[in-house]
Amino acid sequence: MLDLAGKPLAAIVSAGSSRFGRREGLYWRELFLEAFKDVLDRCPNLNPKKDVKAVFLGMMSEGFEKQGHPGPTIASWAGLMPKACIRTESACASAGAAVRFAVAAIAAGFYDIVLVGGVEKMTNLSTAEATELISTASDFHFDQWNGLTFPGLFALTATAYMHKYGATEEDLARIAVKNRGNGALNPKAHFQKPITLEEALNARFIAWPLKLYDCCPITDGASLLVLTKPRIARKFTDTPVYIIGQGYACESILASEKDYDAVRFVANVEASKEAYKMAGLKPRNIDFAEVHDCFTIAELIAYEDLGFCEKGEGAKMIREGTVEREGKIPINTSGGLISRGHPVGATGVCQLHEVYLQLTGQAGNRQLKGVKVGLTSNIGGIGASAVVTICRRGG
Amino acid sequence: MLDLAGKPLAAIVSAGSSRFGRREGLYWRELFLEAFKDVLDRCPNLNPKKDVKAVFLGMMSEGFEKQGHPGPTIASWAGLMPKACIRTESACASAGAAVRFAVAAIAAGFYDIVLVGGVEKMTNLSTAEATELISTASDFHFDQWNGLTFPGLFALTATAYMHKYGATEEDLARIAVKNRGNGALNPKAHFQKPITLEEALNARFIAWPLKLYDCCPITDGASLLVLTKPRIARKFTDTPVYIIGQGYACESILASEKDYDAVRFVANVEASKEAYKMAGLKPRNIDFAEVHDCFTIAELIAYEDLGFCEKGEGAKMIREGTVEREGKIPINTSGGLISRGHPVGATGVCQLHEVYLQLTGQAGNRQLKGVKVGLTSNIGGIGASAVVTICRRGG
Repeated sequence: MLDLAGKPLAAIVSAGSSRFGRREGLYWRELFLEAFKDVLDRCPNLNPKKDVKAVFLGMMSEGFEKQGHPGPTIASWAGLMPKACIRTESACASAGAAVRFAVAAIAAGFYDIVLVGGVEKMTNLSTAEATELISTASDFHFDQWNGLTFPGLFALTATAYMHKYGATEEDLARIAVKNRGNGALNPKAHFQKPITLEEALNARFIAWPLKLYDCCPITDGASLLVLTKPRIARKFTDTPVYIIGQGYACESILASEKDYDAVRFVANVEASKEAYKMAGLKPRNIDFAEVHDCFTIAELIAYEDLGFCEKGEGAKMIREGTVEREGKIPINTSGGLISRGHPVGATGVCQLHEVYLQLTGQAGNRQLKGVKVGLTSNIGGIGASAVVTICRRGG
Repeated sequence: MLDLAGKPLAAIVSAGSSRFGRREGLYWRELFLEAFKDVLDRCPNLNPKKDVKAVFLGMMSEGFEKQGHPGPTIASWAGLMPKACIRTESACASAGAAVRFAVAAIAAGFYDIVLVGGVEKMTNLSTAEATELISTASDFHFDQWNGLTFPGLFALTATAYMHKYGATEEDLARIAVKNRGNGALNPKAHFQKPITLEEALNARFIAWPLKLYDCCPITDGASLLVLTKPRIARKFTDTPVYIIGQGYACESILASEKDYDAVRFVANVEASKEAYKMAGLKPRNIDFAEVHDCFTIAELIAYEDLGFCEKGEGAKMIREGTVEREGKIPINTSGGLISRGHPVGATGVCQLHEVYLQLTGQAGNRQLKGVKVGLTSNIGGIGASAVVTICRRGG
């Protein structure tokens, strides 16, 4: 395990995103290009054909569009041939994985400047078809086979958590209300309309105790970052953001092997430990975070798994406003997966896009004041993969 | 582009493989475990739970078994939780990509000991279903949509090549005969029966001019390597094999954007240049190679793309016996994809498995004499992704 005491591994010198939502008539390669244009607009000194040496792309499934092998697709459509363009897949942590190995490739000296992104086009399938395809991220033999899809898997987690720690449906609803409120300030978010606590509590059940607003939508979208070696970052921007810590861990894909005694996602705990150690930081040093709220219960558990509060005290974080924009540690200022949307293979980079905007003062109406260190936590499956990344604003 | 002048990036300290073929009744995770047992049997000093820090796994499609997210699947089934287990996908170069980023992660200091593998279980689908699924590696809109599958794509390449350089169906058939002869000496190969030139030439057409034996089979299989930092390799073996050069490149996924003027795979040319430069070697320094003979024409073109002969002289290499086991540069001693088989996402590591066996004197009846440097060339799609790796026997 690397211990860098905050020495930067790589620098983010630009970030871009497509508009998120139901993007009818566009293929994923076109969403990628929308994000690509955005990332270039924000980085006029970058000559992509000359400067970019490789692309790392998270994408969860070739099943949505019958289009796998996204590397060469991007190489051609973005005019980057013959650069190495590579896909990573770890379900909903696919883009987090792409960041991990983009950073490793930079640190190894393989490349000095790379693009790292994530993309998914989902809404061309029906919700039922998309739900079935997403289920390939859970165990086929034991979970899929028995009809357990992700709303059901997270509902099981929620009931176990509520039973053990006394959290309520209202606690979960408050997370949805917070994230929808934040998303209303994000002009690229899928949903830009706040909801009330009553609306959240009165919404129809998807899988008890999870109701409509406890669940992220099915969304089309793409996000991209430009990463460089730290020492060349200022060629491209006056406001680099440094990646100073990162962790990656896995637990079992089987729901029956989860830690229901403590109701936590072991991979996220382990990945955050690795990231904190590498950065030489503690959870109290984190100013804000983007965490993986595919369902509200996942955000609640993330407060604990990432060390922002003690085990079992997650509900207090939302009840006391600690995680609101004005709180001590704002969580999901982008709107999170619930409001910005969750193009499954893109989310890990969408989260870093928000951290970049916040740390460089480009977050518009949702801008936080005086933030220096941000964290992202991207999980895949029922917490089976986890990537945690810690970023610091350039001095 | 790194120029290491032969300084090792990583060491291979063990290699293992499942039996290849139609492995009825087994899931891909079980094929992975078969290779895992083999890799451990060959490396008694390795304590996997303690020593292995991460797993990099090539897999082309979750569509074969409706099982994506292989990282946590492996983490659980191989008893490696909570280690990071990550999938790469670049179509038939998926395992080559896994090796690339395993090497980068070691060189970056992220991990000291990793497993890198590839796996695919294909025969549970019909040949037609599997062919359609493999087609997700080609462009959906322009190629798949018009019914162009990979036998057709490589047949187009073959006709262009034959027209331009005068190669014959017999030249292609000789490659099939050579590889089936080699595979007959490989106890793990899918096909272990030699064929005659007459059989090859009289076989039914799949897509003119490619006949049955010009095409690799649909195969189940898995291969695995243990990679370490070079300086700790001798803790695990007296015969380490060093990875001293590697390249990765992409060209367009679109068949219509291929270089039909020269009939070559640009990505393979570029990847080999990068690998040779990193290793400080020339093509003449390579003693033997495993190249990507998904179809015989791909092997023929690889002789040229990798610099083993001049452009247009590939057919001479097979006519004059240069690439036979007793020739100057033996190619595909394992039997290649045509005889050992082509579990699509596994092949890049299957190739390195053979290079490891040859360089450590463990290749049995097909053992080459006095070989010191071996190369692998793994391509994806119609040459759209390419990974080239150069290995040197430990001194």
